[in-house]
Amino acid sequence: MSSFDAATAVSRRAGSAADTPVYDVDLDAGWSIGGKPNGGYLLAVLGRAALDAVGRSHALATSGHFLRPPSGGPAEIRVEVMKTGRTVSTARAVLWQNDKACLDVLVTAGELPTDAPEHAGYPQPAMPPPEQCQARQQDDIPVELLDHVDVRLVPETVPFHRAEAERRDVEPVIRGWMRFHDGADADALALLLAVDVCPPTVFHLGRMGWAPTVELTCLLRREPAPGWLAFEAKATVLAGGWFDEEATVWDSTGALVAQSRQLALVNSR
Amino acid sequence: MSSFDAATAVSRRAGSAADTPVYDVDLDAGWSIGGKPNGGYLLAVLGRAALDAVGRSHALATSGHFLRPPSGGPAEIRVEVMKTGRTVSTARAVLWQNDKACLDVLVTAGELPTDAPEHAGYPQPAMPPPEQCQARQQDDIPVELLDHVDVRLVPETVPFHRAEAERRDVEPVIRGWMRFHDGADADALALLLAVDVCPPTVFHLGRMGWAPTVELTCLLRREPAPGWLAFEAKATVLAGGWFDEEATVWDSTGALVAQSRQLALVNSR
Repeated sequence: MSSFDAATAVSRRAGSAADTPVYDVDLDAGWSIGGKPNGGYLLAVLGRAALDAVGRSHALATSGHFLRPPSGGPAEIRVEVMKTGRTVSTARAVLWQNDKACLDVLVTAGELPTDAPEHAGYPQPAMPPPEQCQARQQDDIPVELLDHVDVRLVPETVPFHRAEAERRDVEPVIRGWMRFHDGADADALALLLAVDVCPPTVFHLGRMGWAPTVELTCLLRREPAPGWLAFEAKATVLAGGWFDEEATVWDSTGALVAQSRQLALVNSR
Repeated sequence: MSSFDAATAVSRRAGSAADTPVYDVDLDAGWSIGGKPNGGYLLAVLGRAALDAVGRSHALATSGHFLRPPSGGPAEIRVEVMKTGRTVSTARAVLWQNDKACLDVLVTAGELPTDAPEHAGYPQPAMPPPEQCQARQQDDIPVELLDHVDVRLVPETVPFHRAEAERRDVEPVIRGWMRFHDGADADALALLLAVDVCPPTVFHLGRMGWAPTVELTCLLRREPAPGWLAFEAKATVLAGGWFDEEATVWDSTGALVAQSRQLALVNSR
């Protein structure tokens, strides 16, 4: 079993009702940033429970609203099946820990297409290969996640250690690659993590530190081919402490496999 | 009272619990496409209920998963307050009609920033003024919404009545303007509608007809200034009948005020 599959495993509680099943999970603090489980990791955990509840293969659209950061350790996922349809099924999954709701998620699930796209815009940008990129490093907070995920950043998009003056001319864009350290290939569920492994793009704007995600929606578009995943993350507006961050992920064949946007907060200065 | 405010009015049911209030609404079939209330209109209705329930001003992030299209007429909104925080509060709102759940929505609410952005990318593209644009017209299905919303499309981005051969060279992008016919200015809540008033961009790809939204997430970034709103909508990938459509909205000062992405289905051929 891959480290990702083990860390996102959920266990359906015996006696759960079919339309409101409850799942137990042991959140793995190894997939954290600064001691708090990564948002994309949590979406994958709740996505796995929702897919099990509706009996579908893929989380086509997943919307997570982050209420309180959970800690590593035991937690409970309460699922409500909202619709079971011919093309898609929809479930709501809420992560509870210590009697507090931590993350509220809606998942619309179905089957990803396998035929060639009728239209495919936004091709993967030209990027140096992973071997010529820079491993994502710890910053002022530890990134435990990097023990499991090998994240390589395109050197000219690395935001760390820039002088303040230099930052002002830099667009808040980061490009890079990711794969799992244990050699397991990313499946569709792992794309929910892949859209959130990049350092916050607002580091380019001098806003360092933990940038909590408030909302993250991810669309999956295709099952990824084996190999490295390429990603691009960019922020469009930073105002009043709020920023958006949009991520696009391509597989090793260059196919666009996931799109996400999150709303997040910068550290108050 | 503006036509938008009247059409999106909700009434809190007496005796509702504070953390699970119920709202009555009379869905206005005048804000429909092909007889089905517009998705952005429905998000605005549920957003209004969620904001009332949490006592906040603005729906900063709204994620809607569409289960079944409701009809015009009476419906019920069941809200759960999930978090009441210092910076944001989060609620879930579900639209019910005839004992069926039609739309499941998560709203994270707070206050929009009023100070100048620290960073603002993606400026409004150059567009001819509304007077030189083309009013959105009925296509093969009626667009009742246009009785209330004045939608003007930049002529070279209008997708209708193109020959099949011509379509193949056209990017699935539509730009235009919107305002209400009754002269009321759009407020922040109306931006939930503004991101969904454009014809489906896949019309450019020859995929005409009703394109049901499966999921739509909208981020509000700023209270819009009075006047016309400018928008751009574009699709990135169409595969297996699924397409994404991303909309960006700017106010009359050129400020970016809303960003959305939806996952939708084309008609099967």
